[in-house]
Amino acid sequence: MNEMSKIADYDVGYDVPAVPGMDEKDIQTPCLVLDLDALERNIKKMGDFAKRMGVRHRVHGKMHKSVDVAKLQEKLGDACGVCCQKVSEAEVFARGGIKDVLVSNQVRDPAKIDRLARIPKLGARAICCVDDIDNVADLSAAAQKHGTTIECLVEIDCGAGRCGVRETADVVKIAKAIDAAPGLKFSGIQAYQGAMQHLDKYEDRKAKIDIAVAMVKDAVEALKAEGLACDIVGGGGTGSYYFEGNSGVYNELQCGSYAFMDADYGRILDKDGKRIDQGEWENALFLLTSVMSHAKPDKAICDAGLKAQSVDSGLPVIYGRDDVEYVKCSDEHGVISDPKGVLKINEKLKLVPGHCDPTCNVHDWYVGVRNGKVETLWPVSARGKAY
Amino acid sequence: MNEMSKIADYDVGYDVPAVPGMDEKDIQTPCLVLDLDALERNIKKMGDFAKRMGVRHRVHGKMHKSVDVAKLQEKLGDACGVCCQKVSEAEVFARGGIKDVLVSNQVRDPAKIDRLARIPKLGARAICCVDDIDNVADLSAAAQKHGTTIECLVEIDCGAGRCGVRETADVVKIAKAIDAAPGLKFSGIQAYQGAMQHLDKYEDRKAKIDIAVAMVKDAVEALKAEGLACDIVGGGGTGSYYFEGNSGVYNELQCGSYAFMDADYGRILDKDGKRIDQGEWENALFLLTSVMSHAKPDKAICDAGLKAQSVDSGLPVIYGRDDVEYVKCSDEHGVISDPKGVLKINEKLKLVPGHCDPTCNVHDWYVGVRNGKVETLWPVSARGKAY
Repeated sequence: MNEMSKIADYDVGYDVPAVPGMDEKDIQTPCLVLDLDALERNIKKMGDFAKRMGVRHRVHGKMHKSVDVAKLQEKLGDACGVCCQKVSEAEVFARGGIKDVLVSNQVRDPAKIDRLARIPKLGARAICCVDDIDNVADLSAAAQKHGTTIECLVEIDCGAGRCGVRETADVVKIAKAIDAAPGLKFSGIQAYQGAMQHLDKYEDRKAKIDIAVAMVKDAVEALKAEGLACDIVGGGGTGSYYFEGNSGVYNELQCGSYAFMDADYGRILDKDGKRIDQGEWENALFLLTSVMSHAKPDKAICDAGLKAQSVDSGLPVIYGRDDVEYVKCSDEHGVISDPKGVLKINEKLKLVPGHCDPTCNVHDWYVGVRNGKVETLWPVSARGKAY
Repeated sequence: MNEMSKIADYDVGYDVPAVPGMDEKDIQTPCLVLDLDALERNIKKMGDFAKRMGVRHRVHGKMHKSVDVAKLQEKLGDACGVCCQKVSEAEVFARGGIKDVLVSNQVRDPAKIDRLARIPKLGARAICCVDDIDNVADLSAAAQKHGTTIECLVEIDCGAGRCGVRETADVVKIAKAIDAAPGLKFSGIQAYQGAMQHLDKYEDRKAKIDIAVAMVKDAVEALKAEGLACDIVGGGGTGSYYFEGNSGVYNELQCGSYAFMDADYGRILDKDGKRIDQGEWENALFLLTSVMSHAKPDKAICDAGLKAQSVDSGLPVIYGRDDVEYVKCSDEHGVISDPKGVLKINEKLKLVPGHCDPTCNVHDWYVGVRNGKVETLWPVSARGKAY
């Protein structure tokens, strides 16, 4: 009972899954663990890439929703700021000290527009996207009301099939309206091709980005002919950043998942046909889970189910093990096939989540680990900030 | 700008999506909305069923994770207490004033066992499940350490294929060990058939439960022959409660989803071949979302994606509309097919989530609505309590 008393003394589990200084083996599960060495290497590597390609890197904060991770990306990866998808996320990053925040999304609701216009008062540059000329007057009125400036990018749908306009003529029309509107500043173009990031083959991804680059180039030139310069031409993700970075058109990348990696992204192939989690990026994010039942000899049940992760992009993969497999996910349980019956009760397994973004969004904490010890706890600062 | 100022005056969106007294149309999206009339009718109806069948109803708190909803289930539905799946959830319910709490799951980690043993000090009966005789000594030691009693149910795997033993001999062996252990009380059997709840056809569900009832009956009789009475014989869900309730063997139901309903459960059929959301239960839970982009004439983009819901059991259904359809879900966006272009920017839609449990777990608040007005805000009290 010594071991139990020792762990209980920490009084973990009420609000935190671990405390700094604790041995990695005492972390309460299920929880998110960050391998800090791997995370730092990923961040530095992408920062170096961007520098070599001569583009800025505006890291995608919607992936991790963490002020601490964003600041590490500024420090080690020369990030120029963050992008995120919701005004409530932008507020968290601005309050946390990030000085340059892009809401890479449309803001249409009157209350949200009002809040966006107040973000500069928190000390941050506030940028959003526009794909409808009717949005311009509302944004302008809110910026004037609060005496602030909202910078606007025109969003181009360059293949993702979600928000954004498709025609250069529409880009120019909206850009001119922004440029003419008091309180607003036209700052460039948002063009993220989200639909191709997870295509397995490098050539398939390249073909899609070639189309996107051509669309964006056409728009940038048309804007220039109208006297409108693009401070930001932004886009690019973990599956495409080298294309946009070397395009000569984009000048800002917006990568998110590279820092943590996940099972779904890990499966895509680089130009040499090698999985990107086998050299290009390291798995830095793990969902730690424990075996809690083994009443059948060939099947173990672990404590990480649908409330500890999102399985929209497939089941998690058990890291570093090929003798056991996560085969089924229900609300509270994971079923692990254990044909040789090797797993023990309370044994911990590191899962690589299928999809990092929505998995991070269900947790309150990242437990940062180095050399077998808990080094830090970081809140998932913007968790649940969906407004 | 009047409308905008009015909404901004509420200062919503920072921590809450709405405030009591607000018009339903001013709620910030995406967020969870409860139709309080429908919720109350569902709760009362299940309470009446249980009473007629002569069984208790221990409501499944893991579905809603809300102390307020659990208390409403006690008040209007004569619930005898709650079950939940994690010790951290049990702590929330016990602290919130629920006096009878079953962790319908195994508790194996030393720190979690220690916390479970302290729950009676919060004023609640603490019950857990056991499927391994090796667990008994640890539970007993913790209860003795804290001078409390942990009640134990032996879990039978009656078809769900997760935790639980399969043989009556094992049930008896574990029950006798519990009965002999200081600090523990043998209180009966846990036998939830989770794998059949979502089978479409009534007859298919009945066939599965017939097997479960036979297994449980055999175990109850074998225990009785050993002088061990079952205070609790628990199980049953929204897709099966009438079977267990009328079995003459089960004496406690453990239904969760009936109170809120969701799209996946709604599709299963009752004994007359009618969907259960067309009479048996009402949709009381909605994910409210707004249209935020409509740059293509036949496609609207809404603000509820993977971070506002779980799509493990399918996409959400747009309530009360057959002219538009939610067809794709990405991290932050939902794509809505709008062939006639009828949707307007900022128009609100009520989504019936595919799966209520993991959807509720990403939100911080329930907005309770009646007659077009926000009546109350309830925290998702045990949100993220996965330990």
